[in-house]
Amino acid sequence: MSVVFYDLAGADRARRFSPYCWRIRMALAHKGLEIEDRPWCFTEKDVIGFTGQGLVPVIVDRGRAVHDSWEIARHLEATYPDRPSLFGGAEAPIRLIASWTDRAIQPQIGRMIIADIVAVLDEKDKTYFRESREKRFGMSLEQVQADRDERLPAFRQSLEPLRTVLASYPWLGGDKPNYADYAVFGAFQWARCTSAYRLLTAEDPIAGWRDRVGALFGGLAAKAPAFD
Amino acid sequence: MSVVFYDLAGADRARRFSPYCWRIRMALAHKGLEIEDRPWCFTEKDVIGFTGQGLVPVIVDRGRAVHDSWEIARHLEATYPDRPSLFGGAEAPIRLIASWTDRAIQPQIGRMIIADIVAVLDEKDKTYFRESREKRFGMSLEQVQADRDERLPAFRQSLEPLRTVLASYPWLGGDKPNYADYAVFGAFQWARCTSAYRLLTAEDPIAGWRDRVGALFGGLAAKAPAFD
Repeated sequence: MSVVFYDLAGADRARRFSPYCWRIRMALAHKGLEIEDRPWCFTEKDVIGFTGQGLVPVIVDRGRAVHDSWEIARHLEATYPDRPSLFGGAEAPIRLIASWTDRAIQPQIGRMIIADIVAVLDEKDKTYFRESREKRFGMSLEQVQADRDERLPAFRQSLEPLRTVLASYPWLGGDKPNYADYAVFGAFQWARCTSAYRLLTAEDPIAGWRDRVGALFGGLAAKAPAFD
Repeated sequence: MSVVFYDLAGADRARRFSPYCWRIRMALAHKGLEIEDRPWCFTEKDVIGFTGQGLVPVIVDRGRAVHDSWEIARHLEATYPDRPSLFGGAEAPIRLIASWTDRAIQPQIGRMIIADIVAVLDEKDKTYFRESREKRFGMSLEQVQADRDERLPAFRQSLEPLRTVLASYPWLGGDKPNYADYAVFGAFQWARCTSAYRLLTAEDPIAGWRDRVGALFGGLAAKAPAFD
């Protein structure tokens, strides 16, 4: 039986770009689960109203709806314990890594690509997205993004903990990729699928790791519509 | 046989305050190892010259010298695999957490307590410490520390990933404390042992966790000379 997966999509329905949905798309592949793909737009709140909230990712697995990427990952680990582990015994440390990505990494990326994101959205989402985000930032999305070249060095510097790990291990999970990798990878895939802006130099070991994660599961992420 | 442990000490030889040494003092206790305690000062480079470098922590275990806190932790885990695990199968994720502490947390704490540190140092270390650090910052240590009240809110905000974990797990390691806890704890213990400046409010769940780590191993860290 397949898992129903509601995933944020752009005007091109094949373009998927939510960092949280990428975490779960990778986690579902890691568990070897078939998915029933449901592309979803920001303004289709009613479609996932059965979850009592309005954000994706959402899955429906064996009749049970689960939302919030971390809760979905925990659900998959608990429901499919005999399949490859998502946490490898490190659930709490990986929670910290996911939260660091949410709080320290993704906000920096968001500021550098947020006007680019508008261009890939479905028409009916553009006004919602622009108005809600411009209210949050108190300026136009173009203004938010305008100083990205100045922000880039500090962003790259803030990734140093990733380079420390990748100097000694092939994956953030260690000798095998796991949810530590998918949590951080989602942030880079979000950027890659919405913007041509280059966050990483080609020589950065993080770029090599990102490419290795992209190549997993038959190139699941690498082959997705993107800007490189 | 006990493990020789070179640990940074102040004018009061019982005052130990290196964040990296606290990681290892906790790790040695976690493994249930007896230590042969060697208080050490910054300017006693010759005493640990046998390691080919000039920083503590240094251990000598079964005739083998090991330096660098992460390498010592790995050595202890590999040498004493039958004792409680330091990594719980999460070596790479915990490496990321330790590096995040090094890069994102400790520099912020350092700027808020660096002039206070001078006051606890052995007389012979004070000039070395002040001159090397003032050269790094390009200003007096008192100037570095002067704006700490303005820095405090951003520091507390940057700890949010810890609160996310502690909302669901008693320890950063999960259901048991491990090196994830000791890596982060060292940073707070460094501050507590050198400065009366309050980094955390009493209501902060991180303060509760810090107290729980301090209470481990018969109050090993809680009972150490400190400013609270």
